Amino acid sequence: MITIENLLHWIQETLLQLNLTNDMNQPKGFSRLGYTKEEQDAHEQFRVIAQNLGLETHQDSAGNQWAVWKVDENASTIAAGSHLDTVYNGGGYDGVAGVLTAFAAVKILKAKQFKPVKNIAIVAFACEESARFGVSTIGSKAVCGLLNTDRVANLKDTNGITLQEAVNDSGLNWQDIQEAELATDAFEQFIEIHIEQGRLLEKTRKDIGIVRAIAQPTRLLITCEGMTNHTGTTPMNDRQDALVAIAGLISHVESAALQMNERQSIPVMATVSTIKASPNAMNMIPGQVVIGVDIRSTNADLKQEMVEVILSFIQHTEVKRSVTFHIETLADDPPIQLDINIQGVLAELCEELNLSSMIMDSGAGHDAMNMAKRWPSGLLFIPCRQGISHHPDEYTDSQSLLNGAKLLAAYFSKCNEAPSC
Amino acid sequence: MITIENLLHWIQETLLQLNLTNDMNQPKGFSRLGYTKEEQDAHEQFRVIAQNLGLETHQDSAGNQWAVWKVDENASTIAAGSHLDTVYNGGGYDGVAGVLTAFAAVKILKAKQFKPVKNIAIVAFACEESARFGVSTIGSKAVCGLLNTDRVANLKDTNGITLQEAVNDSGLNWQDIQEAELATDAFEQFIEIHIEQGRLLEKTRKDIGIVRAIAQPTRLLITCEGMTNHTGTTPMNDRQDALVAIAGLISHVESAALQMNERQSIPVMATVSTIKASPNAMNMIPGQVVIGVDIRSTNADLKQEMVEVILSFIQHTEVKRSVTFHIETLADDPPIQLDINIQGVLAELCEELNLSSMIMDSGAGHDAMNMAKRWPSGLLFIPCRQGISHHPDEYTDSQSLLNGAKLLAAYFSKCNEAPSC
Repeated sequence: MITIENLLHWIQETLLQLNLTNDMNQPKGFSRLGYTKEEQDAHEQFRVIAQNLGLETHQDSAGNQWAVWKVDENASTIAAGSHLDTVYNGGGYDGVAGVLTAFAAVKILKAKQFKPVKNIAIVAFACEESARFGVSTIGSKAVCGLLNTDRVANLKDTNGITLQEAVNDSGLNWQDIQEAELATDAFEQFIEIHIEQGRLLEKTRKDIGIVRAIAQPTRLLITCEGMTNHTGTTPMNDRQDALVAIAGLISHVESAALQMNERQSIPVMATVSTIKASPNAMNMIPGQVVIGVDIRSTNADLKQEMVEVILSFIQHTEVKRSVTFHIETLADDPPIQLDINIQGVLAELCEELNLSSMIMDSGAGHDAMNMAKRWPSGLLFIPCRQGISHHPDEYTDSQSLLNGAKLLAAYFSKCNEAPSC
Repeated sequence: MITIENLLHWIQETLLQLNLTNDMNQPKGFSRLGYTKEEQDAHEQFRVIAQNLGLETHQDSAGNQWAVWKVDENASTIAAGSHLDTVYNGGGYDGVAGVLTAFAAVKILKAKQFKPVKNIAIVAFACEESARFGVSTIGSKAVCGLLNTDRVANLKDTNGITLQEAVNDSGLNWQDIQEAELATDAFEQFIEIHIEQGRLLEKTRKDIGIVRAIAQPTRLLITCEGMTNHTGTTPMNDRQDALVAIAGLISHVESAALQMNERQSIPVMATVSTIKASPNAMNMIPGQVVIGVDIRSTNADLKQEMVEVILSFIQHTEVKRSVTFHIETLADDPPIQLDINIQGVLAELCEELNLSSMIMDSGAGHDAMNMAKRWPSGLLFIPCRQGISHHPDEYTDSQSLLNGAKLLAAYFSKCNEAPSC
């Protein structure tokens, strides 16, 4: 057996180890981008931790790092994990929490002398964040056979290095990356723990969020064409100012989303997140403005309703302001539903463990959204302070990490009893 | 004498000559930036035209090109002119119209065998446009002793060439540029003809605009600080979205200016002309937005009222949205009043010549705004099609150019009668 104190201490030490630091308080946060030496160094620590726990390790051809508690080659395998890469100046919990709690769950089971009859695999997926190449979850996409190599090979980072080059520079071979795909019988199921990156758990004082569905964004690129003209000579009532036209849309998107959320329980989030005005000169009326709109909900109908709200506003504005709009749909992916049985088991286990829990949706994408397309999958959230993430101030306390680890240990244990948990 | 047909033909030929082209219809317009070979080539054509008219030419140490109808060294001099440089892909009338009509006025007077008793000086000021170095009216500033050489010497163009280097590359000497300043007795007065760069004359079907005052901009750089957060995990009612906050301000600036213009006769123009959002990433709520606001009116009180409207809205928004604003005043120059006596004489002459005219304000800056600080100065507008300027579609018909030339010729003639016109 292991005491709670020792376990909390081990969690803190392992958290530092995976973050390659002696102090989680880093004013500039952690910059450990996908397919960099920093990510590889974290994967090296993953191997050290795994080996200390008596697990077998291997890296696949996409750079995903695996650790397996292998008990029987012919038995099924329960997989768990997340990722170790971060955004630029990110936090030390996004991703790390999922890998760390999986290891901690194994540590708990091993301390209890638990004898699994199914294999347990822990994974650190490579390059989950889109921060470097603008595309997310490269490693888990490869495992799930969802990676379109032609489409992503030549995406560049800010230094002009392509994804293909970065993968090759990591000691891998881009030509082999598809070999990371696993057969359907490789896993019985997959489970991921992640920090919430929102404030719902903190506000409702819940220990655990059991995720029902993952919202995938609908993304629009909206261009408004007005007329560039001199700011000093063009009367206010004789302008086709594209920025004023877009400003109305920005305000309308927010107020429409707020109204929709008052009306029904599943939230829709709509954000004008990018903007570029031309000519963007102090003495010229903006003649063209391009904005990016990110719309999310686990209810696809609500996303579509928001798109229609935008279309309607645009039509009205075209008439009112003599401007023209052009809309390009960059993404329109349906929400991913997670396994309902796994949610049920997790909810029961929370009660048994005296952990308060709630069913909730995920507004952000995670490796689990790829895994869910291939294997029954679950996603658990633990609270993070003030919902702050992708930021040096990201923080989750050790108790929350311990709660996740205990729940995962109980889940592994439970699944060992059932033929298919 | 010269027939109207011949004069119109001469105006068309000289327009082509000053624009260094055989065809005014140029899809990419004219790119004749200050202190470039293109501007020098136009100045060379200025000299050819001047010499054909029997005028003496000289270049000053700021690169301004002068042509003088010298009748008496001890007599006073009436100066007229504008500039020959353009913006990138600009039109062939902005600036050129003022030089061309001044030459045409001399041609009319010479054809009439007019014998002036005062000298007449025609000028093409160097580098009037801010397009190359971000600062306007370099040449006329030098003539007026208003050029702060320390402040502008190292301003760079898009190729990294400094103003100082560009001046030296033009065969001038930066160290001598201040020597272009002229004594107060150099001129009795200055008059500039310019295309309106607005639609007021076209809409009211007036031949001539007699400018009362030149609006100089008040320019604000407004930063809104909110909180960057994930677009998918941050509830709509728990955001500090700097872009939504700024969008409200953009709309408010327009509606407040429209209201102010309904209330009183002197227009105020307020434009949010530049915008930059951070992090400007598709999945992040904008945490910081910086906008540039350009406010113009020939009534300084109205500009101040608009600033106060903005301050009031910002205070309200800070409370409502938990964002903070920071305002930097980049410019706050008072309007330039033009000489009231000159306006009166010009209005009388318009009646005599059967030209319809109106008193109006200039929203844009011109060389006359510097000259007005040193000498009694006048500024005349002629219509340009649809108010389009700084664009290849810029166009003013020959009749409007002829109207300007006739008015200027009449003005030169009138001033010869009076001791000080």
